[in-house]
Amino acid sequence: MSDGAINLRDKFATFSEPWSPRIVAEMNDYQFKLARLRGEFVWHAHAETDEVFIVIDGAMTLEFRDKVVPLAAGEMYVVSKGVEHRPVAPQECCVMLVEPRGVVNTGDAGGAYTAPNDVWV
Amino acid sequence: MSDGAINLRDKFATFSEPWSPRIVAEMNDYQFKLARLRGEFVWHAHAETDEVFIVIDGAMTLEFRDKVVPLAAGEMYVVSKGVEHRPVAPQECCVMLVEPRGVVNTGDAGGAYTAPNDVWV
Repeated sequence: MSDGAINLRDKFATFSEPWSPRIVAEMNDYQFKLARLRGEFVWHAHAETDEVFIVIDGAMTLEFRDKVVPLAAGEMYVVSKGVEHRPVAPQECCVMLVEPRGVVNTGDAGGAYTAPNDVWV
Repeated sequence: MSDGAINLRDKFATFSEPWSPRIVAEMNDYQFKLARLRGEFVWHAHAETDEVFIVIDGAMTLEFRDKVVPLAAGEMYVVSKGVEHRPVAPQECCVMLVEPRGVVNTGDAGGAYTAPNDVWV
């Protein structure tokens, strides 16, 4: 953990891989993760928890089975637990995720996009 | 709750009172709150929980008994539970706080700055 301020853009500058969340901070048993989104992710849901998206740079879309939510820098959204969603970013988008420690990025879907969930930035 | 994107600057534009956190989103039993900081807050601690500060606009300082942490827009900091701190903002600063539902802004200190903790924006 940092002993000083955590600068989000500085942290993003240290990695370039898309769909590979990095833990940037912990609060109680919750984690703040930075992720670069690029292209279309897999449809998935998290059965046990809500998940927060906060867009730091760029723009993205959260697709749901019944709606589409565009998100730009300075905007956030709470995906309710159990709700299928698919993040899509035509251009690269930098987001901060907030969720309990141990959440896997692909939720119930698994597959090639599944990333380690214990890597710090 | 919003059914679409939550735009943080739009939400800040709806209130002007300093030291008066507004709930902007909930995730499980945690809350995201927007607060305007202006001047010097009271020294306090939260015995039961960590507390996250994310600076959205402006700059502030988190004072601790043994150090001072400057924070600017795009930076965050996790105040560990039980640690005395005092937020200070010489010019107004817009921050997002993340903490469990029910946390009182003045923690163990109480006093005139104590705000309701159930007001949504």
